[in-house]
Amino acid sequence: LDERSLIRSVMEVIGRENCLDDCAVIPCGDRDIVFSTDMLHETTDFPGGMSDWQIGWMSAAVTLSDLAAMGADPAMILLAVGLDVPERLRGIVGGAAACCTRHGGVVGGGDTDHHNELTVVSSGIGFTAPGRAVRRSGSRPGDLSGITGPLGRAEAALTGLHQYERDLLEPRPRVSEGKLLAASGVTSMMDISDGLVISLYDMLEANSCGYSLDSERIPLIAGPEPEEALRLALYGGGDFELLFTIPKEKAGAIGIPVFFIGTVTGEHEVLLDAGAVKRKGYEHRWDEM
Amino acid sequence: LDERSLIRSVMEVIGRENCLDDCAVIPCGDRDIVFSTDMLHETTDFPGGMSDWQIGWMSAAVTLSDLAAMGADPAMILLAVGLDVPERLRGIVGGAAACCTRHGGVVGGGDTDHHNELTVVSSGIGFTAPGRAVRRSGSRPGDLSGITGPLGRAEAALTGLHQYERDLLEPRPRVSEGKLLAASGVTSMMDISDGLVISLYDMLEANSCGYSLDSERIPLIAGPEPEEALRLALYGGGDFELLFTIPKEKAGAIGIPVFFIGTVTGEHEVLLDAGAVKRKGYEHRWDEM
Repeated sequence: LDERSLIRSVMEVIGRENCLDDCAVIPCGDRDIVFSTDMLHETTDFPGGMSDWQIGWMSAAVTLSDLAAMGADPAMILLAVGLDVPERLRGIVGGAAACCTRHGGVVGGGDTDHHNELTVVSSGIGFTAPGRAVRRSGSRPGDLSGITGPLGRAEAALTGLHQYERDLLEPRPRVSEGKLLAASGVTSMMDISDGLVISLYDMLEANSCGYSLDSERIPLIAGPEPEEALRLALYGGGDFELLFTIPKEKAGAIGIPVFFIGTVTGEHEVLLDAGAVKRKGYEHRWDEM
Repeated sequence: LDERSLIRSVMEVIGRENCLDDCAVIPCGDRDIVFSTDMLHETTDFPGGMSDWQIGWMSAAVTLSDLAAMGADPAMILLAVGLDVPERLRGIVGGAAACCTRHGGVVGGGDTDHHNELTVVSSGIGFTAPGRAVRRSGSRPGDLSGITGPLGRAEAALTGLHQYERDLLEPRPRVSEGKLLAASGVTSMMDISDGLVISLYDMLEANSCGYSLDSERIPLIAGPEPEEALRLALYGGGDFELLFTIPKEKAGAIGIPVFFIGTVTGEHEVLLDAGAVKRKGYEHRWDEM
């Protein structure tokens, strides 16, 4: 049972519409609220050697990234922290507050509890113009698909490429990029935290169209051999770039450098260089049980 | 180091104003958003024998209770669930959804992860009229203090009084009461999840005035001897009643039955029958470390 199967199993309880996006959307007068929550555990989500400050930074960053994926302006993050050692709280909150100061929103408080394994749940809200939150659904055949930057840095750091350590440990949520992309008329968007290919499969689930990737157009990071760099870009987790689709006629006026990596197709499938590509990437699994 | 000391230690990082209430408050046009998060663990927060459905219900109830304490109308709850056994998710989400259906808001999605010990973080948002969220601060000398119902039921159930088991396992958040109290002009409010006396000390921290309790006016539950019933009312945890203060001239027109249990005084202290009462109740502690 993987995480995505699990989520499908509760869709009928709370409604499919509430399970497909990075955030829920709540109308509020002349704005929409987007609302997200993310759970992180020390052993599975925080690479070894992270400082408490970096753990706090990353906890805020994952939630700001969810808000960014909807094109939202972050307003506030709350932290629920299960602490193994209570003195760690100060560093964690300090890192989260620094990430908000840099990228948007404020840390508005939270809850604490004792836990054998450090557990941080970051919940955040942001705002968009009414009806303008960008969803995973909305891709249209003929659109271009794009990403905001080269992928694979975080995974490369895990394999020992020290020049990418900061990308892994202090990831930058693409908040300003998300807002610009939303204003540019993207038709669908999400963040790529579990890898490019698995993210395209997530998009597939929310859409009736499909996605065709052109490997020669995928930007690769410097350092690894090209074949390894492509593998990191396709399947590496831990990056915070945004994946979006946009009509061709709007693709030239986004205002920030982006990389167009493929097209939206009419067939409900994910293709790489016109061939099938397996759904693979970083996933929480419960197979051992 | 207790939970409240820990929270004080991060106040200087994120600002004192953000640490004193059950919810943070964010202006949003013609409304204010109130925003809260609560972390619950199986071993410390869920009494043994609870069903997954009841665990979900309680997780939603604690957050709805925080929203109720601000006088807010609940809009949405998100659940972050660290699962020991993935199949538990369905029951948990079902219980949370039922609590929202009954008391307000909807379950709008969430996040899941694997965890050795079941961990549920419930985050919620609700709305109040602008500037009308009720805070812990705002008590004024001369106000009456009141509660929405007899206290001690949950703790009584833990001591073996089976007639109160449902109060313990399926607690009812006082959402409609909170909204009525806010509309009636209460000056301060909070929910009493950790016991009456410790809650009055929490109010004390947010105010420059003090609180004087009259034990004869505290409503007692049926079952235990009066002395034990008073102890349960003063120090028992797990109840979901609201504690509020209100000017005397408004106290007669609340529209629901409430119990006035004392007065707000000019001295910065908590008194029981004119004598000092120690700050005691349910608290997470990290003393063992």
